[in-house]
Parts: sequence; structure tokens; C-alpha cells
Amino acid sequence: MFTFDLQHTDPASSARAGLIQTDHGPIETPIFMPVGTAGTVKGVHQYELKNDIGAQIILGNTYHLYLRPGMEVMAKAGGLHGFNGWQGPILTDSGGYQVYSLSDRRKITEEGVTFRSHIDGSKHTFSPERSMEIQRVIGADIIMAFDECPPFPCDYKYAKDSMDLTHRWLARCCEYVDNTEGHYGHGQTLFPIVQGSTYDDLRRASAEAIASFDRAGNAIGGLSVGEPAEEMYRVTDMVCAILPKDKPRYLMGVGTPVNLLECIALGIDMFDCVLPTRNARHGMLYTAEGIINIKNAKWKDDFSPVDPDSSCPSSRFYTRGYLRHLIHSGELLGAQIASLHNLAFFLWLVGEARKHIIAGDFASWKNDMVPRLERRL
Amino acid sequence: MFTFDLQHTDPASSARAGLIQTDHGPIETPIFMPVGTAGTVKGVHQYELKNDIGAQIILGNTYHLYLRPGMEVMAKAGGLHGFNGWQGPILTDSGGYQVYSLSDRRKITEEGVTFRSHIDGSKHTFSPERSMEIQRVIGADIIMAFDECPPFPCDYKYAKDSMDLTHRWLARCCEYVDNTEGHYGHGQTLFPIVQGSTYDDLRRASAEAIASFDRAGNAIGGLSVGEPAEEMYRVTDMVCAILPKDKPRYLMGVGTPVNLLECIALGIDMFDCVLPTRNARHGMLYTAEGIINIKNAKWKDDFSPVDPDSSCPSSRFYTRGYLRHLIHSGELLGAQIASLHNLAFFLWLVGEARKHIIAGDFASWKNDMVPRLERRL
Repeated sequence: MFTFDLQHTDPASSARAGLIQTDHGPIETPIFMPVGTAGTVKGVHQYELKNDIGAQIILGNTYHLYLRPGMEVMAKAGGLHGFNGWQGPILTDSGGYQVYSLSDRRKITEEGVTFRSHIDGSKHTFSPERSMEIQRVIGADIIMAFDECPPFPCDYKYAKDSMDLTHRWLARCCEYVDNTEGHYGHGQTLFPIVQGSTYDDLRRASAEAIASFDRAGNAIGGLSVGEPAEEMYRVTDMVCAILPKDKPRYLMGVGTPVNLLECIALGIDMFDCVLPTRNARHGMLYTAEGIINIKNAKWKDDFSPVDPDSSCPSSRFYTRGYLRHLIHSGELLGAQIASLHNLAFFLWLVGEARKHIIAGDFASWKNDMVPRLERRL
Repeated sequence: MFTFDLQHTDPASSARAGLIQTDHGPIETPIFMPVGTAGTVKGVHQYELKNDIGAQIILGNTYHLYLRPGMEVMAKAGGLHGFNGWQGPILTDSGGYQVYSLSDRRKITEEGVTFRSHIDGSKHTFSPERSMEIQRVIGADIIMAFDECPPFPCDYKYAKDSMDLTHRWLARCCEYVDNTEGHYGHGQTLFPIVQGSTYDDLRRASAEAIASFDRAGNAIGGLSVGEPAEEMYRVTDMVCAILPKDKPRYLMGVGTPVNLLECIALGIDMFDCVLPTRNARHGMLYTAEGIINIKNAKWKDDFSPVDPDSSCPSSRFYTRGYLRHLIHSGELLGAQIASLHNLAFFLWLVGEARKHIIAGDFASWKNDMVPRLERRL
């Protein structure tokens, strides 16, 4: 089961509020999805994700889970839900992105990608069919098409060939998914991915091709890979105009709080990014008043809460001075508090965006928020 | 305010159940105190200590807190309670032990110890008076005398000279504490420390000297520093026979679950050790059925709870196979789950010991438990 109900559209932007239903529960959009790379959102308990952060869906990374713990263990656990205990919706990527960014000696052919594990150097092959089957074993509610994600910058010919390959691979992904069933009794929905680098004609062609597959949701890949934010917004805007309105749109790997609001305004419904957790571990905190680098000496003796307005109990319990000490000392608890904080903030932010879309004043709220979010406190 | 009420004594051993009262609340003994080296029990939230682990008192390390965040910050925070948000009782060591084990180029004189920070090489001096004042600023409910902790093995002359110095330093600690007041309005109680290495006559002399100071509680130091367990038990037994019955006895830096039970049987009331958290981070789990090395391949596809009988919700929520994956992958959440588990187990164990002391069957229960605790699962 997978449905998307488009509930509200902002009158002054392309922002939308919607409701996705999956066999593991509902997802109110726009939504941010915490990234649980190796089956764990780093530093955060599953019950904290649910109770303290308000996460509605989390991500798993196919490449990481395939290598460790491996698919034999995953199948015996009953998939990722059984493995890590998170009972809400899960989305998995196809494994492609990490093959390109992490593995050694990868070789791309029409058939798929051969690569060596970044953990032990062992040799593996991902193909569209293999990626689909691995995602069947992981058992995510939303599974992603196996694509090639070209680097930025990327010459036109490479971008076009890569996009064409991604489209041919998509046909194979659909074929596989449409002729197999999930292993655990719940539905699994395939999202195809628009590619085409930053070339307008390629992006348009890709968006049209992807839309023609008529799947239940669509994703935009190959952005937030080093291009300027304005390029990302331009491409997103162009692609959103082509992708069907009645299906959720997922912008992969994006981004900062400002990126989220700008792309919600362009019609994006779903986001994921390691930024809130990765930056948390380095002491960068996002708040509604701006960005805090907790390592700065100015927080040393600030014994006000990390964020008095946070929806996260931890951010109200601990002080900035204490968190600075923990991050400064490399203490685990520092990463824990900061990760909880940033994720709770990202979830709060998309939740507020949703409220304002429903209230009809999203665009003006967003224009108020963006400069605040960019401030350095 | 500091009182100790000796509630029960086991008929078949020297085990005791008691109740300590401090201005930050009660402590039921025997008790294990989680170690919060740098103002944080590694990987564990303050509210988890209270709600999920059942901690009644935690430790802070004077050496670490003195160097970072430093006493200026600590004073502004209102002491460690204000700094880290833990509202229960706190005990601080004197800083001496870490000076001997961590710092560079330390030099011991009659006056005190000069040393260089292991963090930045800066030069510092701890004296009995300085240690007391630092512990005043940290604001622990129980503060420890500044002693010298000789290494093991240690020749007789060194052990005797060191013990004599520790006794002279104790007189200075008492003088300082008795003529100053705490900074935050709550009571601070000084525990002196028995030394004397593994030499019976020195240990006896030290226990008698320490007892004669007639402080509200007494500690045994210089054990669990590499000597055989039998030596530790022998010395503990001998010292407990001399230390007053009506005051709590704290065995510093001990130990394994078996060590705890054996030393409870000898009359010890309080313990601290980094072992449950340090070993947790390496995947060693303590349970009532024995020790689990979660890294072993046998746990790979064991999807039963980490410990179905644990008092800790996390140990019942996650599976062994998942925890193995996390520890194996170096994921923060692995350290978190395992630390919660081990601390909850240590607290459960001393709580059970207390119940059996009160029920009058501690000795037989202990003899049942010890072989189980030593098993490798």
C-alpha cells in the first residue's frame, strides 16, 4: 500500500502539504528523513527518533547494509525493520551513490557496476536487478531506482550518456519490481530518479522520461553534489514543473535548513541529508534563530539551554556551556545531544513549513525565516 | 548533611545494607557509582542514568574537570550539578590518581604534586589544600582526600613512605575542609583513603590511622591496580575488619561483577569503575547468565533481545545481532546501547545484593551467582 494525498498548495509558491500512507504508517509532507546509513541514525536511539525528534520515516543505505551486516543476516532479521527495531516507514537508496563515492576501482557497464568494498576490498556487482533484490531483502517501504549519479562538474556528453543509462536501468528496475514481491508482506514502492546534471535540456528530458514511467513517486538525484545553490534551485524548479503534481517529489541528499525551505517552495515534498547529524558531531547546531558553532569560546560559560524553544527534551535539558565542553572534549554525549538537537530542528522546520502551507502563508513565513536561519549566532 | 544508617548485616558474611543521606538525595548501599570522567558518563544521558539505569550517585574526576572545562567555568555553572544537570549525589576523586596515571613529568614533594596536562602540556600543582578547594568548586557531595596511589608492584619502603605522606596529606585535607565551607549551600563530606599497597602491616597501620581521623566515611585506595584478585580480597578483608562498622566503606576503582559481590561479602558498601562503560565500548556485555563478547560471530543472527531480563529498556528493545552489527561497524549507537546495558546490570547486581542482604540469604545467593557471572556465553 502506498498512497499520496495532496492536501494543500501554497497560493504564493509551489509548496505543497500532503499525506503519504505506507504499510508502516503515514508520512506528513513536506518531510525530512534522518539518514540511518548503516541501519542506525548515528548517535540516536530508535525510540528517540520517534519520541524526541518526531521522525516519520528514516533512510537506510543499501551499499552499507549490503556489505555489513550483509543480506543473509538482513533476511533472517526480517529486513531492516526487524533488524534495527524502527517500526515506521523506511526508504532505501539504491546503493549506486555510495558505489560512486566510497568504493574502490568501480567499473560501470551496461549491465551494472562492479566495485570493491571500502571495508575489506572484496569485489561485488550491483545491477538494476540486484539493487532491487537487495532492497527487497532490506524491506524498505520506498525503494529507489538504481541510477548513475554523475559528478559535478560533468561534461555534457558524459551527463547525457549517464542519463540515458539511468533511464535504461530504470526500465529494468521497474521490470524487476513489477514481477516480484516483497519478502515480508508489506508493500514496497519504487521511486525513479531524474538525472541530467545541470544541463537544462537533459534535466527536462529526464524529468519527462521519468514522469512517463508513471510510478507512485519521483525523485531528483544528482544535485547537492557541489553545484552552487542557485543551480540546484533552478534545476529543481524546472524539474518540479514537469513531474506530476499528484505524486510526491523527493530531492535526494538536500540539504541545509535554507535549502529545505527554498526547495519546499519549489514543490519538493521529501528530503534526506547527513548534514544535521554530521555537522552535529562537529558542533554545528541549527536553530530558528540561526547557526551556533558550539565550539566557539563565547558559549563556554553560557548556561542557558542548548535551545530553549526546541521540541527536543535534550536541547532544553542541557546547557550550551556543557555541550561545548562535551564537543570540545570529544565526548560521545556531545555528538548525541547535538544530533538529537539538529534532527529535531529539521523535523520541526518541515513541520512548521507544513503548518504554514496549510494556513496559506508559507511564502511570507519562508521569506522571514531564511535570513534568520542563515545568521551566525 | 551526610548520614549513614547501617540497616542490615548478612548473618553468613560481612555484607551490609545501608542508607546514605546527602543533600542531593539518598543512596542505598551497597551501591555502584557510574564514572563520569569529564562530567559525563560516556555515551549516556543524565536522564537515562536516572530513569533507565537506576543510578543513585555518579562520579566526577577532579583532574579531568580541573583541566577541562576548568574551575572558572565550573564555578559559574554552580558546580558539576549545575554544569551537567545531574541532580543526584556526586562523588569526586581527589585528582591524584589521574595525575599519577595520565599526566607527564609529575614531581611529588611534601607540598604536593607538580605535573603537566596530558591535553596541552601546561604545568599545574595539586596539593591537599588545592585538591580540596577544586572539589569545593566542583561541589560534589562526597569528596576524596588527596593521596598518593603507589603502583603495583611497589617496594616496601616506597609503599611505607607513600602511605606516611598520604596520612600527612590527609591531616591537611581535614584541616582545609573543616575550616572552609562549600560554595553552593549543600554539604560536602570528606572520605579519607587507606593505602599501604599489598603489605599487611602497612594496610593495618593505614586502616587504623584512617579510622582515627573519624570522618563520616572511609575509602580503600591502591587496589585493582594490577594485583591478583585474591590479594585484593585479602587486603580488603583485613582493612574492613579495622574500619568502623557504622560508616560507609568505599573500595575505589573496583571492579568486575564478581569483584563487587566478593567485596560486598567483605563489608564494602560503595564501588566505582570504568569497566562497565569501557568494556561496553569494546562489545563486552555483563549479564546475570554470564559474559557476552558481542563481537563473536555466534551473535550475528541472534535476534533475541540483548538481555531479555535487563532492567534497562534499551537492552530489551534491541537485539544481539543488531548490537553486534553496531559494535562491529564502530557505530556510536553500539557504545550507547552497550554502556546503558552494562551500567544497568551493575546497578541491578548491587540492588539484588542489597535485597539478599536484607532477606538474610546474601552469602548463598552470592555463591550461586559468582560462577554464573564468570561464564562466557
